[in-house]
Amino acid sequence: MNDPLYLDYNATTPVDPRVIEAMLPYLRTHCGNPSSDHIYGRTAKAAVDQARAEVAALIGAQPAEIVFTGCATEANNLALQGAARALFSNRRRRTLLYSAVEHPSVAQPMRHLASAGWAVAEIPVDAGARVDADALEIDSDVALVSVMLANNEVGTIQPIRAIAEQARAAGALLHVDAAQAVGKIAVDVDELGCDLLTLAGHKFYAPKGVGALYVRAGTALEPIQYGASHEHGLRPGTENVPHIVALGEAARLARTTLAQGAARMTALRDRLHGLLVAAIPGLHLNGHPTERLPNTLNVSFPAVAGWQVLAAAPTVAASTGSACHAGDHAVSGVLAAMGLTREAAAGAVRLSLGRFTTESEIDAAAAALIGAWKSLAA
Amino acid sequence: MNDPLYLDYNATTPVDPRVIEAMLPYLRTHCGNPSSDHIYGRTAKAAVDQARAEVAALIGAQPAEIVFTGCATEANNLALQGAARALFSNRRRRTLLYSAVEHPSVAQPMRHLASAGWAVAEIPVDAGARVDADALEIDSDVALVSVMLANNEVGTIQPIRAIAEQARAAGALLHVDAAQAVGKIAVDVDELGCDLLTLAGHKFYAPKGVGALYVRAGTALEPIQYGASHEHGLRPGTENVPHIVALGEAARLARTTLAQGAARMTALRDRLHGLLVAAIPGLHLNGHPTERLPNTLNVSFPAVAGWQVLAAAPTVAASTGSACHAGDHAVSGVLAAMGLTREAAAGAVRLSLGRFTTESEIDAAAAALIGAWKSLAA
Repeated sequence: MNDPLYLDYNATTPVDPRVIEAMLPYLRTHCGNPSSDHIYGRTAKAAVDQARAEVAALIGAQPAEIVFTGCATEANNLALQGAARALFSNRRRRTLLYSAVEHPSVAQPMRHLASAGWAVAEIPVDAGARVDADALEIDSDVALVSVMLANNEVGTIQPIRAIAEQARAAGALLHVDAAQAVGKIAVDVDELGCDLLTLAGHKFYAPKGVGALYVRAGTALEPIQYGASHEHGLRPGTENVPHIVALGEAARLARTTLAQGAARMTALRDRLHGLLVAAIPGLHLNGHPTERLPNTLNVSFPAVAGWQVLAAAPTVAASTGSACHAGDHAVSGVLAAMGLTREAAAGAVRLSLGRFTTESEIDAAAAALIGAWKSLAA
Repeated sequence: MNDPLYLDYNATTPVDPRVIEAMLPYLRTHCGNPSSDHIYGRTAKAAVDQARAEVAALIGAQPAEIVFTGCATEANNLALQGAARALFSNRRRRTLLYSAVEHPSVAQPMRHLASAGWAVAEIPVDAGARVDADALEIDSDVALVSVMLANNEVGTIQPIRAIAEQARAAGALLHVDAAQAVGKIAVDVDELGCDLLTLAGHKFYAPKGVGALYVRAGTALEPIQYGASHEHGLRPGTENVPHIVALGEAARLARTTLAQGAARMTALRDRLHGLLVAAIPGLHLNGHPTERLPNTLNVSFPAVAGWQVLAAAPTVAASTGSACHAGDHAVSGVLAAMGLTREAAAGAVRLSLGRFTTESEIDAAAAALIGAWKSLAA
């Protein structure tokens, strides 16, 4: 195998071959516009409807509660800007809360809303990147809370249900960015108790370029783009039929393989961690030790920078943090929010596994990373 | 052939098989995130860069002036809302102008901007759906003008260059929705003189779910979604790599086959028109007789409704107007703006041809439509 070992599934997954097979007829043959009132259009519309049902089934929602978008970033923007616009006209509440470890596609819309007059505040996290739900105070001025289900860099899973109970008691909406969680752990919108939930196709084996927003029935939301009345009037634009079909198939695969996949991921990830810990004194695990995505291992290598380790281990394709920040060597905001020292944060490498990762790949990756660290630390 | 004859290319084109071949490796093999700093990511980024160069070459732009979006509707929203936001902070100009025959993805953002305090005004069109550039007045209060290059329902081509000269003299920006024009007629942003231009993948043989906005270098534009700094900071979200690659290949094909394709389209379309006119007394051509897309024939059948003609001709897949309004039988806003009587507008059918339309299909479609009209009119 000449290609590097791919351990960057949190940046993006490959597309599952079964997903490609499902979408190909909608590239090759069924090319109608779902809005067209003839057989080509109706075939495309039926496929979109079926995909909507599959995505809904994966997260315990109703099909009418699913809005397809061009990506999870768009879903997050629709959720936050859309809810803010809907709440603005009846503006007794002026505060928006979000956690200190949110993705830029949540944090940046929040900053925009702050510049538009909202009082926006960060919820701190502990050393494991976790929000302390007991310490959280959601008062009657809070209009909306946004906390991710699982962190993209360190994999920490947030206590969403406890946050949801507080939000509901206070009359605030809860948005959950579940882009990194869906397909890796069970996600049920009623168990979570959220009003809005974002998912990303390319994080669970559908292609890049499709996402969805769950909007609980009855939740007031304004569109952020305007045009024809697609997607319940919440997202105009001709539907990306092949990618929506792909998302549906990816959802079906995730639903039917979730438990087995998670157990396999956990075993492989812990094997990788064990190999690294045994060879590298002082290796530090970032993120929560147990409340963590089964596929995610973020570790700080001692005394060297993470990018140096990766540069010295070219047979491993991984990242030092979010793909959105690749290429700069600035300290991750997530690791900073967790209180890591500058040195520990600089030493971080994110190793994220997936459906196609094998035990032999794990062993080879561990050997390469250990060799790289030893050569650098020597 | 059991499938109906497809004469609804203005609703959406099939994907060209060469486009599918070009994109498949980016579904099957090259699945990196373009933001990732390893070989998988760099391969994806190189493909996005190459597609950007192809799209730029098609319209005479520089690659850095192309922003990829999830659809043309998003590109129109980014152009209009984004320019309005950028202009707002230095708000000496308070007026936005758009033509009376714009697509909902221009007209609806304009209505939203009107509700946000802008003075928004419609530019009327003549009986051929054309803006009279000589009668147009763009004064020093106008911040932005939006006029489509070619109309989706009747195919009329607007005198953009003359409008651009006036806009530039008045210091106003010009946005051109070229979603229906790109791939059908030559489009050059310098010849047109526009500052912003929208194109849609699925109108020229790329898949649904990808579009682009041309932003002339130096044009002030704010994003409408917030997140990481993709697409020159104007459109966050992981890039839809396979569809962007497809858009690049579709642009390359359009550039290399445009003149030949347009001549072929015109001949087939005029053949269809001739057959219909010869058999149906009182058939009315909608749109400009000459300044019109080569593939578009919109005709009003006398004494019957367009949807009735199509229902009686099930071997022809066409539409009565924009796909965005299919399913309702309300009179088209475009035809109303052209001053058609209610009866003439109700009788309208849009027949739009494309790259895969053949002469025998044209003859069969004409026979089916003539037979349908005769059975209804009898």
